[in-house]
Amino acid sequence: MKSHTKYLTFNTPKRRTLVRITDEAAECCRDSGIKEGMLLVSAMHITAGVFINDDEKGLLEDYARWLEKLAPSDASPDRYHHNRTGEDNGDAHHKRQIMGREVVVAITRGKLDFGPWEQIFYGEFDGRRAKRVLIKVLGD
Amino acid sequence: MKSHTKYLTFNTPKRRTLVRITDEAAECCRDSGIKEGMLLVSAMHITAGVFINDDEKGLLEDYARWLEKLAPSDASPDRYHHNRTGEDNGDAHHKRQIMGREVVVAITRGKLDFGPWEQIFYGEFDGRRAKRVLIKVLGD
Amino acid sequence: MKSHTKYLTFNTPKRRTLVRITDEAAECCRDSGIKEGMLLVSAMHITAGVFINDDEKGLLEDYARWLEKLAPSDASPDRYHHNRTGEDNGDAHHKRQIMGREVVVAITRGKLDFGPWEQIFYGEFDGRRAKRVLIKVLGD
Repeated sequence: MKSHTKYLTFNTPKRRTLVRITDEAAECCRDSGIKEGMLLVSAMHITAGVFINDDEKGLLEDYARWLEKLAPSDASPDRYHHNRTGEDNGDAHHKRQIMGREVVVAITRGKLDFGPWEQIFYGEFDGRRAKRVLIKVLGD
Repeated sequence: MKSHTKYLTFNTPKRRTLVRITDEAAECCRDSGIKEGMLLVSAMHITAGVFINDDEKGLLEDYARWLEKLAPSDASPDRYHHNRTGEDNGDAHHKRQIMGREVVVAITRGKLDFGPWEQIFYGEFDGRRAKRVLIKVLGD
Repeated sequence: MKSHTKYLTFNTPKRRTLVRITDEAAECCRDSGIKEGMLLVSAMHITAGVFINDDEKGLLEDYARWLEKLAPSDASPDRYHHNRTGEDNGDAHHKRQIMGREVVVAITRGKLDFGPWEQIFYGEFDGRRAKRVLIKVLGD
């Protein structure tokens, strides 16, 4: 069994951004030399997520508006008790639960085994500081 | 280390359907000959998902109504900018984020290591065309 | 390839509780002797979930209130057809879909490869009876 580990660092200029990271994951898959296995991509911070969907500008706008509706930004400690700690990012912890922390992707014949439109995204919900994503490959 | 890969194809007559696929996953587990490992089941299309819950008719109706409330069907490009592309399935991309893209199931002593009520479902949110699900088994 | 399996049992006095289980997962990682691999933690019951986020009291209260808003408790069969079966836990099946059934964690150099604040939680949404969580470790 082989394994391979890589860390990506993001420091997004905007507080909330969705960043396509399929190429970084594919590169990690190639570097691993693994032909059959699984690749895990996970956010290492709890106000960010990783998900797979379409790389379409309108959809990414839709997600941003939808998440704002499901878990509105609100720095006050009334809506989010979490903000009693002095934080103002309670909403980000909720947005990430909707979009997910991690994805697991199959590797088949040395490649990410994707359908036609699958793209991996890093979902940053409280950026403007360095945050990491882990990629782990396991297989043979 | 052994691995085994299988693709299922669904072409559901209705736009939205929840289809139980536990038997297909269990068959793939048996075919792999793997005794200890993990099984990944993932939707290969971004308007469909895979999740684990109860095979109970009322609950499946509840999920359908609930998803419709959280991400209503609406072909117009006003609610979903994604529909500016000419698509009318913006809602399906959102419904799938709630239910999830994939599940990872433990294999123990050659079987899916499930609790008493766990059943795997394919969640189709924009059907009436051929779409694929991937099953990948890894282990020994 | 090595593997290791462990089952945890929870019988929470309250119907809804979020329980930190990072230490149990870390212990299972150590017991496995696996240096490079993946660890799966999954709820074996369909009215409970497993997720990773911050161990902060205010945030855990926020999640409880937020889930109640997204999927309100309601024993009647009107809101949840699932309750026509005689059950009263339709809401719990929905809450678990939001928070997730499982997490997959990378193991690197023999340890759970976590960011600074990542903690694993068992999310119980219909407790007061014995329910199990599965931990499976795979790697070398």
